[in-house]
Amino acid sequence: MMTSTTPRPTTTMPDTGIYDRRESVVRSYARSMPRQFTKAQDVWMHDNQGGRYLDFLSGCSTLNYGHNHPVLKQALMDYIATDGIAHGLDLHTDAKAEFLGALESIILEPRGLDYRVMFTGPTGTNAVEAAIKLARKVTGREMVIAFTNGFHGMTLGSLACTGNAAKRGGAGVPLSHVAHLPYDGYHGADVDTAELLAQRLEDPSSGLDAPAAILVETVQGEGGLNVASAAWLRRIAAIAKEHGALLIVDDIQAGCGRTGGFFSFEGLGFTPDIVTMAKSLSGMGLPFALTLFRPEFDQWSPGEHNGTFRGNNHAFVTATAALRHFWADDAFTRDIARRAEIVAQRLETIAARHGLSTKGRGMMRGIDMGSGDLAAMVIASCFDRGLIIETSGGHDEIIKVLAPLVIDDAVLSAGLDILERSIDEIAHANFDIAAE
Amino acid sequence: MMTSTTPRPTTTMPDTGIYDRRESVVRSYARSMPRQFTKAQDVWMHDNQGGRYLDFLSGCSTLNYGHNHPVLKQALMDYIATDGIAHGLDLHTDAKAEFLGALESIILEPRGLDYRVMFTGPTGTNAVEAAIKLARKVTGREMVIAFTNGFHGMTLGSLACTGNAAKRGGAGVPLSHVAHLPYDGYHGADVDTAELLAQRLEDPSSGLDAPAAILVETVQGEGGLNVASAAWLRRIAAIAKEHGALLIVDDIQAGCGRTGGFFSFEGLGFTPDIVTMAKSLSGMGLPFALTLFRPEFDQWSPGEHNGTFRGNNHAFVTATAALRHFWADDAFTRDIARRAEIVAQRLETIAARHGLSTKGRGMMRGIDMGSGDLAAMVIASCFDRGLIIETSGGHDEIIKVLAPLVIDDAVLSAGLDILERSIDEIAHANFDIAAE
Amino acid sequence: MMTSTTPRPTTTMPDTGIYDRRESVVRSYARSMPRQFTKAQDVWMHDNQGGRYLDFLSGCSTLNYGHNHPVLKQALMDYIATDGIAHGLDLHTDAKAEFLGALESIILEPRGLDYRVMFTGPTGTNAVEAAIKLARKVTGREMVIAFTNGFHGMTLGSLACTGNAAKRGGAGVPLSHVAHLPYDGYHGADVDTAELLAQRLEDPSSGLDAPAAILVETVQGEGGLNVASAAWLRRIAAIAKEHGALLIVDDIQAGCGRTGGFFSFEGLGFTPDIVTMAKSLSGMGLPFALTLFRPEFDQWSPGEHNGTFRGNNHAFVTATAALRHFWADDAFTRDIARRAEIVAQRLETIAARHGLSTKGRGMMRGIDMGSGDLAAMVIASCFDRGLIIETSGGHDEIIKVLAPLVIDDAVLSAGLDILERSIDEIAHANFDIAAE
Amino acid sequence: MMTSTTPRPTTTMPDTGIYDRRESVVRSYARSMPRQFTKAQDVWMHDNQGGRYLDFLSGCSTLNYGHNHPVLKQALMDYIATDGIAHGLDLHTDAKAEFLGALESIILEPRGLDYRVMFTGPTGTNAVEAAIKLARKVTGREMVIAFTNGFHGMTLGSLACTGNAAKRGGAGVPLSHVAHLPYDGYHGADVDTAELLAQRLEDPSSGLDAPAAILVETVQGEGGLNVASAAWLRRIAAIAKEHGALLIVDDIQAGCGRTGGFFSFEGLGFTPDIVTMAKSLSGMGLPFALTLFRPEFDQWSPGEHNGTFRGNNHAFVTATAALRHFWADDAFTRDIARRAEIVAQRLETIAARHGLSTKGRGMMRGIDMGSGDLAAMVIASCFDRGLIIETSGGHDEIIKVLAPLVIDDAVLSAGLDILERSIDEIAHANFDIAAE
Repeated sequence: MMTSTTPRPTTTMPDTGIYDRRESVVRSYARSMPRQFTKAQDVWMHDNQGGRYLDFLSGCSTLNYGHNHPVLKQALMDYIATDGIAHGLDLHTDAKAEFLGALESIILEPRGLDYRVMFTGPTGTNAVEAAIKLARKVTGREMVIAFTNGFHGMTLGSLACTGNAAKRGGAGVPLSHVAHLPYDGYHGADVDTAELLAQRLEDPSSGLDAPAAILVETVQGEGGLNVASAAWLRRIAAIAKEHGALLIVDDIQAGCGRTGGFFSFEGLGFTPDIVTMAKSLSGMGLPFALTLFRPEFDQWSPGEHNGTFRGNNHAFVTATAALRHFWADDAFTRDIARRAEIVAQRLETIAARHGLSTKGRGMMRGIDMGSGDLAAMVIASCFDRGLIIETSGGHDEIIKVLAPLVIDDAVLSAGLDILERSIDEIAHANFDIAAE
Repeated sequence: MMTSTTPRPTTTMPDTGIYDRRESVVRSYARSMPRQFTKAQDVWMHDNQGGRYLDFLSGCSTLNYGHNHPVLKQALMDYIATDGIAHGLDLHTDAKAEFLGALESIILEPRGLDYRVMFTGPTGTNAVEAAIKLARKVTGREMVIAFTNGFHGMTLGSLACTGNAAKRGGAGVPLSHVAHLPYDGYHGADVDTAELLAQRLEDPSSGLDAPAAILVETVQGEGGLNVASAAWLRRIAAIAKEHGALLIVDDIQAGCGRTGGFFSFEGLGFTPDIVTMAKSLSGMGLPFALTLFRPEFDQWSPGEHNGTFRGNNHAFVTATAALRHFWADDAFTRDIARRAEIVAQRLETIAARHGLSTKGRGMMRGIDMGSGDLAAMVIASCFDRGLIIETSGGHDEIIKVLAPLVIDDAVLSAGLDILERSIDEIAHANFDIAAE
Repeated sequence: MMTSTTPRPTTTMPDTGIYDRRESVVRSYARSMPRQFTKAQDVWMHDNQGGRYLDFLSGCSTLNYGHNHPVLKQALMDYIATDGIAHGLDLHTDAKAEFLGALESIILEPRGLDYRVMFTGPTGTNAVEAAIKLARKVTGREMVIAFTNGFHGMTLGSLACTGNAAKRGGAGVPLSHVAHLPYDGYHGADVDTAELLAQRLEDPSSGLDAPAAILVETVQGEGGLNVASAAWLRRIAAIAKEHGALLIVDDIQAGCGRTGGFFSFEGLGFTPDIVTMAKSLSGMGLPFALTLFRPEFDQWSPGEHNGTFRGNNHAFVTATAALRHFWADDAFTRDIARRAEIVAQRLETIAARHGLSTKGRGMMRGIDMGSGDLAAMVIASCFDRGLIIETSGGHDEIIKVLAPLVIDDAVLSAGLDILERSIDEIAHANFDIAAE
Repeated sequence: MMTSTTPRPTTTMPDTGIYDRRESVVRSYARSMPRQFTKAQDVWMHDNQGGRYLDFLSGCSTLNYGHNHPVLKQALMDYIATDGIAHGLDLHTDAKAEFLGALESIILEPRGLDYRVMFTGPTGTNAVEAAIKLARKVTGREMVIAFTNGFHGMTLGSLACTGNAAKRGGAGVPLSHVAHLPYDGYHGADVDTAELLAQRLEDPSSGLDAPAAILVETVQGEGGLNVASAAWLRRIAAIAKEHGALLIVDDIQAGCGRTGGFFSFEGLGFTPDIVTMAKSLSGMGLPFALTLFRPEFDQWSPGEHNGTFRGNNHAFVTATAALRHFWADDAFTRDIARRAEIVAQRLETIAARHGLSTKGRGMMRGIDMGSGDLAAMVIASCFDRGLIIETSGGHDEIIKVLAPLVIDDAVLSAGLDILERSIDEIAHANFDIAAE
């Protein structure tokens, strides 16, 4: 049925009085997508004027299984209907036991991973704060190494690890105890930035203090879909080990299937000491985050890092359902791989036509428009056509395709058609002519 | 019916293998209440062995309306059933508009308050981080004044404002840009600590830098149910204004009816510049937090402080239902006042019998056992009798009664009966004899 | 001979072209004493227009033995004439051995003090930086407790301990790892600030981290001649010991006889763990500073804190001569006591006449003018009469008499006469009338 | 006369009882040169057993004009004999006026430099603290960029800029508000580290905050005689200007003729915004330091950065004499160039023989022994032959020739003969054989 792949965007702005009066000007996405949304199902979002939009943003990779996936939704409704615990601090609950059991049997054991699970406050930044606290506690050191263009959250400890100047500027205080080093490829193909780091750490006069942790994303989502090679990551892991630092992989955006496997580092030949998860972990967009670490580093005192919502039981329920539905066998992984290949080929074709380059890995790919202005024009054009899509990168210059991983291949193609048309138009009007 | 007011505790420990294997040792409440809970309704929590427990902890004031309140539960189930948006970043949604409208008409306008609403990451610490960021940005200053025994969260910015040494020690780095000053009554009845603060700020050589903000709880929940007087708070507000600092009231634990009104500062004769809310805001225990501020301080750049889960739409739905159900008229406030009086009188009687003192305000009251060891014995005894109750204070020496605000008067009395019996026993065995 | 006690001020300004062109506007004393000085002897400074000035500033207590004391001067000239080592890094030299021997036999042993000597860079701030570094190293803690109105230097570590807002503001970065607590008497006679500190340290939720050191001046010179009582200091010493912190007495301004004994804490009933010395240590105004500490805290690695000028051998020579000349018996101490009594009585009389109060101890006394403007008028009037004198205090409101300790009693009286006349005039013109 | 070029080392250890009892174990040079020195003249140091040593350390470049140069010595003795002001805080004195005039006419004007002079506390670290304070004040920014292997002092602000881990570790607190970037050549000849810095600053998500200053040595003395090229320094100057940062050249060790000109940056094609000077500035080893800056950056408030010894008038006298004697014409510069050429050729020959490499510029040169252990053996061997010489570098692996600039060519050769013999011996015994 053709209609099922076609967006139906609304052309008029809804009334925004209540937001103008009451919501802080800090809001951001609502500015580039000025609609009021009412409901959402699978890959579609519906507004209050009858419009519908194809979602290639997926809540910044929070909705990898799409909106309101029926299996997850049913599990949650059943749980609520029977008065399942909604909030239980960190008390033991059936929902928590189920989740831990599913994580153990479906994810950890098959991958040969032995991690302890810490339920932090249910936001990514909280998981990162817990991770760096733990690394500092375990090592007795204070300095954390993070990377250029890394993004790790907005609370003070995570923000110090984040590279983005506008976000950092919001702190209002200097951000300390973190050193940023160049990410893989940052200084061009000829400079091996892992070796730059190694040299600094081996030199007792380099000004780089002995690190508690090295904090890295395998693919930098907000930073512009920069991909670290397996060799570079293995070298970073070896450097961390050699210098007594814990290796933390922030898998908040790249994990949960976005790059193919449940963890983004699967098959790359190294095992992090600590892993942070959030975003798509609950599967249905409910707030949920956790920090995983090797048992020997589980050196917390009881309650040393806590938080009111650290046991979001609704999220346990949907997360468990997601693990069982999607990760019990390798069908989903194969689906992702196939769709990733579709995205890769289509983006490559589009980019090549205009002399642009592509970036990313798995279902986390994009096109470098070379300028934030051009990229903004593209996403505005897409939105007018009913496609929700966003940018990332230091200059917001990367068009970022974060389609739901469950998307039907035909719908995926339809969305990419819209993107192609928009890029073609913007390119034609702005730089193809100049190049002719 | 007698049974309805009587707990039925389980006496055997459930299997904890999965937790031992997989959950971090950082867990805390699960240690003093070693049961696995399955469901909860109203003031009762049920375990997987058929036991039921009366909840005088209320998720540390997160469940002021009890567990799974039928009105909130129905609203949420209806929302999910119709594929309402679960996760929408900060996009405009029906659920958000409904919440903002309800907050405006039911809470803000009747109280003559003009606040802008910032949806921060859905944890209290995130709301505090946003609040102090904003104060620093608006004032161009870096130092925040917080108070002895204050508790504001676990991420690095909030943790610097928190007084508790064990929590602070978890940071692994020194906590900076915050000065702690003595709270109301901290140095005894004869020392007006507001005047100590004023003297420090008026003295250019006091070593106290000009503050961006003064961050205060009207009642210190975690700090030991310390209550600031209205006069002291007004003086603090005046000092903040005089010295160009923003006054932030952290109402995360004391707000949402816990001390009587929706805000804990109602009727005290001052208006904060910024207010942080979380815990009972969603009404059903779902993660939700926000930061309110006067419109003139809404100086954020778009996205300057963001977060993946900053629009928890399920929480919008339950929060809106809670506002409409409980706060549209003053019936609930009168109920709280009556129950608070019951708690106050009963605690006073119990305390007086053993030469102990009571603390707190509204439905946030307790008894100072004088030692953490004694308090721990009391709560263990209560738990054995089916009453869930916890401690707070610098030495965990305060027995903290945080019963749901909706609790039936008879059930409240039954719970207080259990508390009384436990205190009597512990007191008799430990110190009453010595005093005779 | 009458002339020997009478200043002879110059009335015309010298040419200041070279300063206007080349010296930074950071200069300060040169503004309130706009003369060009050529030579100085004993208590007199001479300008290049033939004027002479009585020096009641003594280089802020750096010239306790007056200018170019003949014994010290001769020792230095003999040393230079025979090519004595001027600069030797931290190599062993005859001059250093002589100094250490004299310090041991004349100062330490008679007082029963067992200190190790660290030659830091030859400025007071460097001695303070070394002291707090050592305390942090020894204790493994980071936070230092300093006091309101304390002054400890301008480099970043010392400046963090300094209370003065204008000086702190110069840092350009937030000053961290130090908490300022109220000094003795800060909150009035009824508040025992030592007990406030004790309460904070005994309370694990006070927000005051476990301190590496408590850094205190027995008399706050720059802070306004505030005097700590012996009882308060003993209590602070006991608190430091109880809480595992080192007690550092900053004796840079109050030591070397200024308050009577060689150390300002002699006879007060406690012994600091670390002492910092500078200012009058060389006796002739040459740069010299040292940090003394109990042998068990001498835990430095070789060169861990160093500095090019840490062995100013010229200063060793004059310091040794000063120790031998002034401190070998108690004659000097008795002289100081007598002169201090003269100053005390005269200031008391002057102050009483105008309803003012006096402050200070030993030869470190002053009058509180109640306002910086009035105090500035007094010192300007004194300067016009040939008396060099300055102010201190948070508002520069304290007239500070820091006459050389060697001053002839008659000259001292003559100087106090000038001060009296100036205060009488200013008081009469400004506030005596109002009070009548 | 042969004797004039030949050292006469002592073979027995002097009594060290007083040091063992009273001097802190922090002492360092006294360990590798265990003699007690009594006097020094020109390039010779004499011990208390009649030995004499040729000084190739020169107080770490503090005695560029040798010990007790007769012209400087006479000027100082004349000044003291006539009761010249020894200590005058920052009052105007004849000695200061003379110094400023000489600096203006002999140094600044001929070089076309327009700098204001700030007399900081008389140590290098104090000059650096003042420099970075001023840059932070002028720019309103907090972060300072320093370089790998940079050395800038021991007080907290300067230490944060210093690269050496052992020195940094002494702080006892984390060192903040400074980012270390790779110095010229740090990552090998193929990586242009100025471009790495430029890329970081141009990227708004690099994690490198906008800098207040870039702080650089043209030759890194303590860091291992690393030399920055003129092109690299010009690029750094351009980067600083482009990004609104002040360029600070720390010329404390490389200035005062050590690299040829009065300033080490002369003739390199750029002009720093701020320059720090100390070490050889007084010419006779007396403590003296200053911070120079462009007049438009002279934005201090009076006394905002001060210090008791900021006007060391004895040092003004000797510094003025040194400027007049050595820098009034270009004879001295030519002498330095000739001697530098001698050193360069001799070191090159020695190094080549053993497959070693040379480092440095002007009279600041050395040989990289490849290991700190070997270098320690060489300097011990030299000392046994009467030659005082030291190492530098991150591993103390660089033999550092810092002969006085005034050294007679024949004596210079004699000293280099000793060095040659020692290196030959050590090399032969340790690695030449292995290479054969």
